[in-house]
Amino acid sequence: MIGRDNEQTPHLGDSVLDSALDSVPVGAIEAGGTKFVCGIGSVDGEIHDRISFPTGPPEETLAQAIDYFAGRGVQAIGVGSFGPIDLRAGSAKYGFVTTTPKVGWANFDFLGTLRRSFDVPYGWDTDVNAAAYGEAIWGAARGLDSCVYYTIGTGVGVGVYAEGRLLHGLLHPEGGHLRLRRHPDDTFAGCCPYHGDCLEGMAAGPALQARWGVPGHELAADHPAWEIEAHYIAESIAAAVLLLSPRRIILGGGVMQQEHLLPLIRQRAAASLNGYVAASELAEGLGEYIVAPGLGTQSGLRGALALGIRALEQSRSGLGDSSLSGI
Amino acid sequence: MIGRDNEQTPHLGDSVLDSALDSVPVGAIEAGGTKFVCGIGSVDGEIHDRISFPTGPPEETLAQAIDYFAGRGVQAIGVGSFGPIDLRAGSAKYGFVTTTPKVGWANFDFLGTLRRSFDVPYGWDTDVNAAAYGEAIWGAARGLDSCVYYTIGTGVGVGVYAEGRLLHGLLHPEGGHLRLRRHPDDTFAGCCPYHGDCLEGMAAGPALQARWGVPGHELAADHPAWEIEAHYIAESIAAAVLLLSPRRIILGGGVMQQEHLLPLIRQRAAASLNGYVAASELAEGLGEYIVAPGLGTQSGLRGALALGIRALEQSRSGLGDSSLSGI
Repeated sequence: MIGRDNEQTPHLGDSVLDSALDSVPVGAIEAGGTKFVCGIGSVDGEIHDRISFPTGPPEETLAQAIDYFAGRGVQAIGVGSFGPIDLRAGSAKYGFVTTTPKVGWANFDFLGTLRRSFDVPYGWDTDVNAAAYGEAIWGAARGLDSCVYYTIGTGVGVGVYAEGRLLHGLLHPEGGHLRLRRHPDDTFAGCCPYHGDCLEGMAAGPALQARWGVPGHELAADHPAWEIEAHYIAESIAAAVLLLSPRRIILGGGVMQQEHLLPLIRQRAAASLNGYVAASELAEGLGEYIVAPGLGTQSGLRGALALGIRALEQSRSGLGDSSLSGI
Repeated sequence: MIGRDNEQTPHLGDSVLDSALDSVPVGAIEAGGTKFVCGIGSVDGEIHDRISFPTGPPEETLAQAIDYFAGRGVQAIGVGSFGPIDLRAGSAKYGFVTTTPKVGWANFDFLGTLRRSFDVPYGWDTDVNAAAYGEAIWGAARGLDSCVYYTIGTGVGVGVYAEGRLLHGLLHPEGGHLRLRRHPDDTFAGCCPYHGDCLEGMAAGPALQARWGVPGHELAADHPAWEIEAHYIAESIAAAVLLLSPRRIILGGGVMQQEHLLPLIRQRAAASLNGYVAASELAEGLGEYIVAPGLGTQSGLRGALALGIRALEQSRSGLGDSSLSGI
């Protein structure tokens, strides 16, 4: 029989174990393709200490993370990693980075390497799923049972939290590679090596640079680049609304530091949906629906912390090591 | 604390209540925009009796359904309804059909009307979510924790089962209205009143008729219509793979009765994804991945039965009436 648990939103730390866990240090790793961020946090979601360093070869990079956590008594570690990664329960490659073109990282046993140093429960998910989780628990989607988190920077990644769970399946969402209708004024071929003109190929930082000859942050707020940029992001948001029906959409990443971009995206997403999805949240210009991260630039690290806390709670409540059951 | 239940796939009827429920009659309603199908089934998933009639004005149509179930002793009723519908737990309009243009049905209290006749637990979801559920439990996605079900007929609907649950959020998926890249040879404006050239506007039965002047079933298997048809369906499937990562995609509905269409769709979906999502299920030409319904034309009715069984089980195990908790 299927019992749907009634909680719509996880309340990490609201468990009966609270008092036992309050002072427990939990490790968090936001493993990005260009930068690692490691931190130590607590069940209340606070990060008490952090460090970051460039992502180098996997063994060296993990050694830096292991050095950082050594002797700090972390009782669990949550990892949000660049991907693709294997997070299928029971897979022999669970905990691995899989087919990435990033030199040295393909088929690397990320969690296994950590396990050899720290025998603790592990949380494990994509960097963007972790960020979605952090935002759902402590950020802009707090209190909601679903959200979609975008990072739009060097690449485009999409994390999905739905029905109170991080979404996986065949692998995990790869929404950065959606194929989208072209902006009518845009002749740029796109720069994704797989798809050319997918979302990432048209709207990530390198696409802005390649299309206009300068980095995005050097383009004035009234430059036509931003209408085109907003078009692709908004088209992908319309697809996410139609397939996932999330209660909130959160846009993070370096490109979104251009604050004039968010209102343009809202306008274009509303135009693309054209009133079809009759939900009150989609009225009023989408100002409450498509939003900036509530955790600023910490969505990923705090999401990784949440993954770690959850693994710890599952372990202590006898639900099994979350690194086996997935999230 | 969040406890993720470990079952990946629901096994309706596998509960300790089995023996008590084996012989219990459960009602099922597949409420389509043109046709209602009502049936009586049992916990093993079998439908023992059924009836169908055209969808007329709501009161008259529900009266026919109520007449059918009267005196048959159903202990629960599952409904998969055309939409949009309200299935938000706690909403004052839970159980209503909401903004449909279908005359008389907008803002109609579907479940409330049934409740006045039968005081039993109710399952309630969209027709396509119900079909996805039926396929996940007894059909082509049996044993999997995720699938996407399409119906491509008078309209296009998309149901989503992910992480072992039917997916809801703001409302429910409305994937039939995805905006897609045009086929390069296609100049048809599309016939969706909201979007023109969205998936439904380009690929539903009426679009085939409007574009070619004859119904789809009169077009030869080598007519160029099918390449164009396959293009739009495949583009939407690529989007579903990238955003939902489902373990299987199931294509039902009248247009899919053209059996030559399925291989074309697989080819085009593979071309659109271009090898990016490195999952073994996506190798081998997608023959095991994009499939016909395992339940033939009964996905929706048997899915509605599953919703009813689940509501009954939740009710008897004290988890609450599923018509309140949703699915």
